[in-house]
Amino acid sequence: MRVLILGIDGYIGWPLALHLLDKGHQVAGLDSYVRRQRVRAIGSDSLTPIATRTDREIILRQSNLFIDRIANTTLDISQDILNAILREIKPDAIVHLAEQPSAPWSMIGAAGAVRTQQQNVIGTLRLLWAMKEVCPDAHLVKLGSMGEYGTPECNIPEGEIPGQCIGELDFDRHCHMKGLPFPKSPGSFYHLSKVHDTHNIIFACKNWGLTSTDIMQGVVFGLNTYDYRTAQLPNEPTVTRFDYDEYFGTAVNRFCTQAIIGHPLTVYGEGNQTRGFLPLKDSLQCITIALEKPPEKGEYRTLNQFENVYTINRLARMVCQVSIGLGLKAEIKHIDNPRIELEKHYYNPAHQKLFDLGYEPITDIQEEITDLIKTLFPYKDRVIKDVILPTTEWR
Amino acid sequence: MRVLILGIDGYIGWPLALHLLDKGHQVAGLDSYVRRQRVRAIGSDSLTPIATRTDREIILRQSNLFIDRIANTTLDISQDILNAILREIKPDAIVHLAEQPSAPWSMIGAAGAVRTQQQNVIGTLRLLWAMKEVCPDAHLVKLGSMGEYGTPECNIPEGEIPGQCIGELDFDRHCHMKGLPFPKSPGSFYHLSKVHDTHNIIFACKNWGLTSTDIMQGVVFGLNTYDYRTAQLPNEPTVTRFDYDEYFGTAVNRFCTQAIIGHPLTVYGEGNQTRGFLPLKDSLQCITIALEKPPEKGEYRTLNQFENVYTINRLARMVCQVSIGLGLKAEIKHIDNPRIELEKHYYNPAHQKLFDLGYEPITDIQEEITDLIKTLFPYKDRVIKDVILPTTEWR
Repeated sequence: MRVLILGIDGYIGWPLALHLLDKGHQVAGLDSYVRRQRVRAIGSDSLTPIATRTDREIILRQSNLFIDRIANTTLDISQDILNAILREIKPDAIVHLAEQPSAPWSMIGAAGAVRTQQQNVIGTLRLLWAMKEVCPDAHLVKLGSMGEYGTPECNIPEGEIPGQCIGELDFDRHCHMKGLPFPKSPGSFYHLSKVHDTHNIIFACKNWGLTSTDIMQGVVFGLNTYDYRTAQLPNEPTVTRFDYDEYFGTAVNRFCTQAIIGHPLTVYGEGNQTRGFLPLKDSLQCITIALEKPPEKGEYRTLNQFENVYTINRLARMVCQVSIGLGLKAEIKHIDNPRIELEKHYYNPAHQKLFDLGYEPITDIQEEITDLIKTLFPYKDRVIKDVILPTTEWR
Repeated sequence: MRVLILGIDGYIGWPLALHLLDKGHQVAGLDSYVRRQRVRAIGSDSLTPIATRTDREIILRQSNLFIDRIANTTLDISQDILNAILREIKPDAIVHLAEQPSAPWSMIGAAGAVRTQQQNVIGTLRLLWAMKEVCPDAHLVKLGSMGEYGTPECNIPEGEIPGQCIGELDFDRHCHMKGLPFPKSPGSFYHLSKVHDTHNIIFACKNWGLTSTDIMQGVVFGLNTYDYRTAQLPNEPTVTRFDYDEYFGTAVNRFCTQAIIGHPLTVYGEGNQTRGFLPLKDSLQCITIALEKPPEKGEYRTLNQFENVYTINRLARMVCQVSIGLGLKAEIKHIDNPRIELEKHYYNPAHQKLFDLGYEPITDIQEEITDLIKTLFPYKDRVIKDVILPTTEWR
């Protein structure tokens, strides 16, 4: 399969490219490298020493890549150039990871919010038009977020309002909303950008017959390369980036980083916030399943992509226990929540479709955290302490 | 009340300013005048001869305007300038009409879609940040569209999923979606931009405590000035613009324009498409009600704003009958539908809230159409025939 990865230099994009090449697919990629700039701009850096752009291109050239380049571009190019790139690559599938991925970054101020919705919403909109004009049969695998749903006090389906929720009662056919998109209640301008994308993509599928899998992904954590059985460290140039700062780091990755430097694990607020989580390896597996088992032509498919739901407290305790088991000092500290979110709530999102398609979680989450801490430990002197704690308030 | 109208030069903005001044409010306005440019760019012009920018400013200066200027700007200015304008004007309420208002224009191609979502979504997002920073207590009256809902095969509430729909059955509390925003199924990138706005505004109210009325407006038609009892023609400089072209004209206005030049009334497809409609005068009345009876501080309120629902066929027949009664030749011609939309469908949107707040339709729709045709007739030589029929296909 010819796969074009947008955002190939990112946390998921880079290991996904390697994983797809391993599986015999042909891979091309685009990236603007703006993530590297933004992380530097907030005074942080990837905890793992990642390869330069040139080195990553060399790695890809050694593979069975059908286009031996990573183009240095974004979706912020002219529509003609975007069309020309798709015409050259002729992708069977496009994995779109080229969005601004941080909720707190989108809440810094007007500029952050505008740049987030600009890059994400307008970028995806331009991609949809390019696909319509150049490769309407390609499969768009788009990274959305479980955060699109927010935390409503009801069960969350995978995409549409299901029949069994209200359809089967038949008390008044005109109260049924079966088949309509489940309403979204996102909690940041970043999550809102994903909701906007979702609506634009649904329309493109319905109106033009494009085909798309919209992945509502949970919070990803971990790294892709470490094998603790062989004690192989990810010092090879294939390792992906690893962010732990308040903007681009996510809960578990931040906790593990705090653990290796002996910093208390900082939980925002009560810590009973519940979310879907999955290791990076599972994310790669799931995206690959989505690619290899596409929906019907013209279908818009939603996949809720996560291994299971966990409270932040449970994950913090898990990181704590693992750390202590490894001889590290670790404790949990609750700090004021910079976000506006429910700190205790009902949460029951469906996530059956990927399991039905063959998803098998490849490791238990405790083992993954153990691996991660071992992997990160040699890099503990690279941690920049100042960037970890939250400074951007949601209000 | 100090009211800032964004898009004060537009079809609704201009007569709304005059109406609010009549009612003793203080009015300031901003406009980029891009609508005038865009209408010229497609080879069309307002059927009514509208005043120049300078003349409109003179009219406003004669009134009790507290800021005697219409600023030549859009939301596409720097955030600092936008903040400075709000700081100077200190609005109690902001009526936001400064969006690209045409569905077909948003479907011309990638550029039209991008410019529409750029202007509308990013513009509103920047306004929300400016309000948060400068005037968080002001009431945002935002023009959305009934087209946000699309035509689902179920009753459409005003905003949220109501309790009586599913909440009262209590068969499983976690299937209840009471209070969540009713899911939207818009049919163009223009309508999508309004859906994106809605989500951004809901978040701004919930997260920052901003106050907003989001108006889901039906299709507006008619003019504001003609009084057929005194036979006063709108040749005075207060008349608003009147578009009839395929992009900026809407169904009834286009039918009436066709009637005065003896052109068949062109109905898209079967003509059983059903929509909410209201005369321009009612739109001004309703927006004024929304302003004078604001929601609670921090509330996000949805109003479905239309007089009643009509099929396109019924309105075309009404224009036909009125025209024949006035001695004009008129007939209906069905043409291929350039849009992708259901041409026969269930349609039952709620629209009680404005009536509860005091909305009284000021005329029956047939009388309004009669007035409109009489008003337009003297301008029949200004009609540019080429721009009426659809050339932009939705597919």
